[in-house]
Amino acid sequence: MAYILKPEPLTAKAFAPFGEVIEITDREFYLINYGKTKRYNDLANLDTLENGGKPTISIFRSQPVQFPFRVEVMERHPQSSQAFISLERQVFFTLVAPVGEQPKLEDLRLFRVGLDQGINYRRGVWHHYMFSPAGERAFLCLDRTGGQGSNCDEYRFSEEILIEAC
Amino acid sequence: MAYILKPEPLTAKAFAPFGEVIEITDREFYLINYGKTKRYNDLANLDTLENGGKPTISIFRSQPVQFPFRVEVMERHPQSSQAFISLERQVFFTLVAPVGEQPKLEDLRLFRVGLDQGINYRRGVWHHYMFSPAGERAFLCLDRTGGQGSNCDEYRFSEEILIEAC
Repeated sequence: MAYILKPEPLTAKAFAPFGEVIEITDREFYLINYGKTKRYNDLANLDTLENGGKPTISIFRSQPVQFPFRVEVMERHPQSSQAFISLERQVFFTLVAPVGEQPKLEDLRLFRVGLDQGINYRRGVWHHYMFSPAGERAFLCLDRTGGQGSNCDEYRFSEEILIEAC
Repeated sequence: MAYILKPEPLTAKAFAPFGEVIEITDREFYLINYGKTKRYNDLANLDTLENGGKPTISIFRSQPVQFPFRVEVMERHPQSSQAFISLERQVFFTLVAPVGEQPKLEDLRLFRVGLDQGINYRRGVWHHYMFSPAGERAFLCLDRTGGQGSNCDEYRFSEEILIEAC
């Protein structure tokens, strides 16, 4: 029998086990630029320096998937965080599981990332690769370049896991 | 007599003395995520590690300025790069001058940053503080947190420098 995943709203509290929500809602700021700019500072931990790594900025252009979508594989980055922000102010979805030897079916969480939100996966958090619910979409990605050692592990599920629609 | 600045289009080549344009136009990519995603990798040099600094992600909300706008002050960050990307896919403007002891009037360049572009100021590049031509605007900012020493110098012009409209 298929295991069906349902999206839930993304809040800082709900996402805390997986990383940070990059947003300004209910966050503190300070004024800079002679009072003309509110700076919401240090919204995520860009954890990219392990084993000689450096932070890097990339753009991902991701193709849409068809629903119902079967979740077959998840990945984690053992040496860095990874952040995604929509460059088109579009809603997107993120499927995560906590840090651990492998993602567990019962721990999977599917979040709907709102118009004014981005996400930063903590190092080692299992996540599905970036997919778009509709249309080809562009995302800013902040992760790690250079350094020693592999930074991607994959886990393949044998169970039938479905996202019916996003 | 006032010195009038005119905006020019932003291209990677024109901006090269000041830093990188964060964009995918005419850039190479490689496929990831089982062919579903194009990764345009390492689009800017996030130079943030000087003297124990770390990369950080912030959101700036900037108020609009009135035109004609008088340019009075520019700043530079001697210990880090600084990147800006519109979170609302809005055009914005950037006023820069090359690395040097002070910004020189004759070297000022005003660029119009397009819908699908961001910018990364190289360390030490003089730039005007982030301003919006219309409406309060949100920008993602990537620069430096922590570390030792000051990371902002300012220069105040005595000349009358005007941006008539953007």
